[in-house]
Amino acid sequence: MEFSKKLQNIITKNNSLVCVGLDPDLEKLPDGVSQYEFNKKIIDLTHDSVCAYKPNSAFYEGAGIEGLQNLQETIDYLKNNYPEVPIILDAKRGDIGNTAKMYASAAYDIYGADACTVYPHLGLDSIEPFLAYGDKLTILLFKTSNPDSGTFQNLDVDGTPYYLRVAQIVKSWDKRNIGIFVGATYSQEMAKLREIFPDSIFLSAGIGAQAAEVEAIVKAGIDKTGAGIMFNASRSIIFDEDPKAAARKLRDEINKYR
Amino acid sequence: MEFSKKLQNIITKNNSLVCVGLDPDLEKLPDGVSQYEFNKKIIDLTHDSVCAYKPNSAFYEGAGIEGLQNLQETIDYLKNNYPEVPIILDAKRGDIGNTAKMYASAAYDIYGADACTVYPHLGLDSIEPFLAYGDKLTILLFKTSNPDSGTFQNLDVDGTPYYLRVAQIVKSWDKRNIGIFVGATYSQEMAKLREIFPDSIFLSAGIGAQAAEVEAIVKAGIDKTGAGIMFNASRSIIFDEDPKAAARKLRDEINKYR
Repeated sequence: MEFSKKLQNIITKNNSLVCVGLDPDLEKLPDGVSQYEFNKKIIDLTHDSVCAYKPNSAFYEGAGIEGLQNLQETIDYLKNNYPEVPIILDAKRGDIGNTAKMYASAAYDIYGADACTVYPHLGLDSIEPFLAYGDKLTILLFKTSNPDSGTFQNLDVDGTPYYLRVAQIVKSWDKRNIGIFVGATYSQEMAKLREIFPDSIFLSAGIGAQAAEVEAIVKAGIDKTGAGIMFNASRSIIFDEDPKAAARKLRDEINKYR
Repeated sequence: MEFSKKLQNIITKNNSLVCVGLDPDLEKLPDGVSQYEFNKKIIDLTHDSVCAYKPNSAFYEGAGIEGLQNLQETIDYLKNNYPEVPIILDAKRGDIGNTAKMYASAAYDIYGADACTVYPHLGLDSIEPFLAYGDKLTILLFKTSNPDSGTFQNLDVDGTPYYLRVAQIVKSWDKRNIGIFVGATYSQEMAKLREIFPDSIFLSAGIGAQAAEVEAIVKAGIDKTGAGIMFNASRSIIFDEDPKAAARKLRDEINKYR
């Protein structure tokens, strides 16, 4: 099934734009609990109040081969038990030609994710191997949520910030299965990107850290149907004492502004 | 030992600026030969005519968990048998805060590479976790070798192409252990980057595909001592009928212009 359809279905079913980041930092896991076991618990508690899960590859790679086995087990568990919930592999890849093809195959064939995050900076020939998977959503990183993201991403290109010029060029490619990543800390940038891509699927991360900004980012990010975007929260949900309640609370907070 | 010293030693010992890309594409391996076994043979044949090895993570990730075990075995084999040859993990990572820290730990603590390729586009806070490993070389990707690399990397920022403006800003950070990546297909860009970073270590990939361009890229890339750069070739060496001869031929071709 095409990603956009799968996302639409789950947003309707769970009435939620919350994506939960499965980022099981080894330093924060209870003793003797594997990353997979930790994730499984979070998934069982939250699956009916989310629209997607997003494991960030770094947390598994940082745990070595065993970590990557836990990532695979997590994805397999989701596909076997909650196949209606899309899985975004947040891998932030970007490479050329044959190598990009290998990364696309790792994300989509091997891990079996429904979407993957990719850097646009190498140009179209580096992204096409991902786009060749027509049912998958390849999410390009335009504006990241970190404090220093503006150093390069906001450089002035003929009066337009770099990230926005990149977006305009990507738009001109007219590709159906490209998603748009914007950090939840940047609602003005979000609004500008939503203007360029009115009907695209967006992913935003970092929401929940500063609750005051939820209204601004939700209003800037939703499409004209009040959906079309996934708001990822990781630590604020998975390390909460009550992850189920935390996910629902964020869901309800976001829904207030849709 | 600091990367620059390790590189200087091996360049002197082997009189070579050739880096061999350990990119064991499964489709091209002989039947029944693992990626590790293939690499081991290449390493044994070429270790005395190279200055570095560069496994590209994509080829291992594309082979699943088993591929990553082969990557680890390859690095371990190098460290145990040829500890004088630096290992560059070409992973092209880039992420923020804690996540960048995990990627740095995967490259440097877990795999044990001496250097890693990283995207600059997220800004300094995304790179610092890599730079914290003082003896390692974190190689930033400024200008990639693919045909479409100019679409974004050459966008005009106040009269300066984006990749060069990024380089000027990186230079202003004044960090000791940053390396510079430039595709071997772009000798003019190489010359401009060498001007900004006269004493930095460079990595260039894609040499050997078009032999005619060897002279231009070598002259543009070497530092004032006739070294300070690693020229990576992958397929043209590892899939040659005689990898040992192919590595030596490229070494001698490059040395003509130093």
